[in-house]
Amino acid sequence: MENYKTSLDAAFHALSDPTRRAVINRLTKSPAPVKELAKPFDMGLPAFLKHLRVLEESGLIATEKTGRTRTCQVKIGRLAEAESWLCEQRALWQARTDRLADYVETQMSRDTENDG
Amino acid sequence: MENYKTSLDAAFHALSDPTRRAVINRLTKSPAPVKELAKPFDMGLPAFLKHLRVLEESGLIATEKTGRTRTCQVKIGRLAEAESWLCEQRALWQARTDRLADYVETQMSRDTENDG
Repeated sequence: MENYKTSLDAAFHALSDPTRRAVINRLTKSPAPVKELAKPFDMGLPAFLKHLRVLEESGLIATEKTGRTRTCQVKIGRLAEAESWLCEQRALWQARTDRLADYVETQMSRDTENDG
Repeated sequence: MENYKTSLDAAFHALSDPTRRAVINRLTKSPAPVKELAKPFDMGLPAFLKHLRVLEESGLIATEKTGRTRTCQVKIGRLAEAESWLCEQRALWQARTDRLADYVETQMSRDTENDG
């Protein structure tokens, strides 16, 4: 079974490049053949294929060859995994912030009672 | 002004390492001095400080020196930025999936009508 840590490493690494993020963004709208995907980018096909390979190896996209056309599609599970990790961190941070706010509020109302 | 693309590059790159993700996770619970942060990791201090530098340069953490102690804390804004990007991609993908489902449903009910 694939290691969760390793898959997050690969997913976040794949997302750290603007070309690869643009490809993901394009593929969220529909699957697309490599040729069409490559068009907007000012780079040679070999360089572009390298980016696709990083995305495929990270599990963020899948590719399938039919005849002479290779079609790519986004794999939402891996994207969701990365999102979940970030969401979890924000939730932990939020929980602490809420506890701090509660503490300050309790202290303040105690101070008010003592003054009264 | 800092470029949004560049900051996402740096944030996702910083998150692609398990040590750095563990540091973020620890810091969501409370700020901590470098010495305490380094403890759970089986690596020399210089290697650990390199990880902290990557995190600080990406804007995911901030550090502050008081006397001889450097304290680190998580910067939730940058974390939220990365999460938002992922959330947006998932929403785009979901919208397409919903449209596809609607289409299939319409076709199916048309077929049923024609059969009836």
